[in-house]
Amino acid sequence: MSKLLAVGTVAFDAIETPFGKTDKILGGSGTFVGLAASQFGVDTGIVSVVGGDFPKEYLEMMNAKGINTDGVEIVEDGKTFFWSGRYHNDMNSRDTLVTELNVLADFTPVVPEEYKNASIVMLGNLHPMTQISVLDQMNEKPKLAILDTMNFWMDSALEDLHTVLKRIDVITINDEEARQLSGEYSLVNAAKKIHEMGPKYVVIKKGEHGALLFNEGKMFFAPALPLAEVFDPTGAGDTFAGGFAGYLAKTEDVSFENLKSAIIYGSNLASFCVEKFGTQRMESLGLGEVQQRLEAFKELTQFDIKLS
Amino acid sequence: MSKLLAVGTVAFDAIETPFGKTDKILGGSGTFVGLAASQFGVDTGIVSVVGGDFPKEYLEMMNAKGINTDGVEIVEDGKTFFWSGRYHNDMNSRDTLVTELNVLADFTPVVPEEYKNASIVMLGNLHPMTQISVLDQMNEKPKLAILDTMNFWMDSALEDLHTVLKRIDVITINDEEARQLSGEYSLVNAAKKIHEMGPKYVVIKKGEHGALLFNEGKMFFAPALPLAEVFDPTGAGDTFAGGFAGYLAKTEDVSFENLKSAIIYGSNLASFCVEKFGTQRMESLGLGEVQQRLEAFKELTQFDIKLS
Repeated sequence: MSKLLAVGTVAFDAIETPFGKTDKILGGSGTFVGLAASQFGVDTGIVSVVGGDFPKEYLEMMNAKGINTDGVEIVEDGKTFFWSGRYHNDMNSRDTLVTELNVLADFTPVVPEEYKNASIVMLGNLHPMTQISVLDQMNEKPKLAILDTMNFWMDSALEDLHTVLKRIDVITINDEEARQLSGEYSLVNAAKKIHEMGPKYVVIKKGEHGALLFNEGKMFFAPALPLAEVFDPTGAGDTFAGGFAGYLAKTEDVSFENLKSAIIYGSNLASFCVEKFGTQRMESLGLGEVQQRLEAFKELTQFDIKLS
Repeated sequence: MSKLLAVGTVAFDAIETPFGKTDKILGGSGTFVGLAASQFGVDTGIVSVVGGDFPKEYLEMMNAKGINTDGVEIVEDGKTFFWSGRYHNDMNSRDTLVTELNVLADFTPVVPEEYKNASIVMLGNLHPMTQISVLDQMNEKPKLAILDTMNFWMDSALEDLHTVLKRIDVITINDEEARQLSGEYSLVNAAKKIHEMGPKYVVIKKGEHGALLFNEGKMFFAPALPLAEVFDPTGAGDTFAGGFAGYLAKTEDVSFENLKSAIIYGSNLASFCVEKFGTQRMESLGLGEVQQRLEAFKELTQFDIKLS
């Protein structure tokens, strides 16, 4: 089994949805990636930063799930990154109410010695230069470097983003961001242009409409599982990425065929994440449930044509 | 092979897209349904109405493809239904510029004797009472009655719509309309409520995001094929419905398993429809190309998970 290194935020979220409201609860991209990957029992190390106000119990919960948090720096006299948002009735759009960067403002990731040989690296949505600094710390080029990014960095650090794109293998990006980065409306053409910027694999996330995987003219689609109720979408994208990366670390196979399975698992895990507030569902989830839901994905997509 | 009866419009369209502009060309839901179904060589009868201005060549083109137009009434001193629209840059939204009902305003469909025993009936998007009048003319309950409708009838003739819903087997409806009809945001819950209104099968069309098929708790998803270029989306929804109905008429099997294949074929044919203006691509299409594209649909959706 390969080691997975996940760089991202470990944070507090306060969430309002039509179903209810939370105080500060555990959140952050690194947290969701770690929890998703932990389903596969892979050796995951998280690199992040928190403040002195961050409850030790959260780190202990992660450790108990086999997530290594040695790379989570604790700035004792600082405050943990805090995000607060309110989802609209359709659950597809949200307003950010509060963003307090706090200790994240000066975050310089330090990769622990034992994860410098991780073969799968998941670079969460951070400044492209921060993402590059992580790659620079690795002993050798990882088997697969996965990068998540967003429109904010396209607007504020496009040149740096292009630099890191040349050094990674997979980009995960949402549909609107893929259009912005490429200048192409069609996702097929957008993926082609982004491919030319460096990444061999382009994963375009379409939220409730699923995700597309592109690789040198080949294309695969993983639907999102239609659900009767979406309770809280927070972390679904990171859970998708964590399931994807975790599955690849578990299976140690970075072929296109196996990446197809990996995005199905990503979508599978994301479908659990939204069932409860924050990390709640991911904390209680077991691989048995995941494998069972895989059957639902098969029923949803697999067909057998009679007409020849 | 079963007979297919398709009731809908045969019309003139004038279309503007970012790629160009047409004068009045052949359009209409019945036309697109007929052209799609003709791919399977099924005996399709169209019931519609046109004016004296409608070129005989259009009817001859349809006849040459095996589409029976005996049920297309020609009102010599009337004008053909005309729609004109302009698509926005994203191709997902459009403005209607002109709608001239003309002969369609007084349309009373008359089912030709030889199609009164059709086993598949496709009721195009018309007034629910008009749809009922077609069912009333059949010799016996068809094996499968498929109904298309839209928000306009929910706003103006909801009670009549509920009456016809009790008499049909499959409803095809887009996502927003499914939400309006059911009062449910989640498509899973929407399908459940619509199911209770009568239809055993609920097909929810999501345009470029594919289509969902629901049947008594079971669920299947057919993606739309991601395309590098969408030239003109006009008729894609009707082509989807025509491919669906045509495949079922061809295979004479209305089980859930076969309906899954039918929506894949619907999506397949729709992916051709948008490649050129109006009916152009559907007129030149052959089953060989359709079967070839089926491979693209398999590659897009079929996966084989290693992890057990």
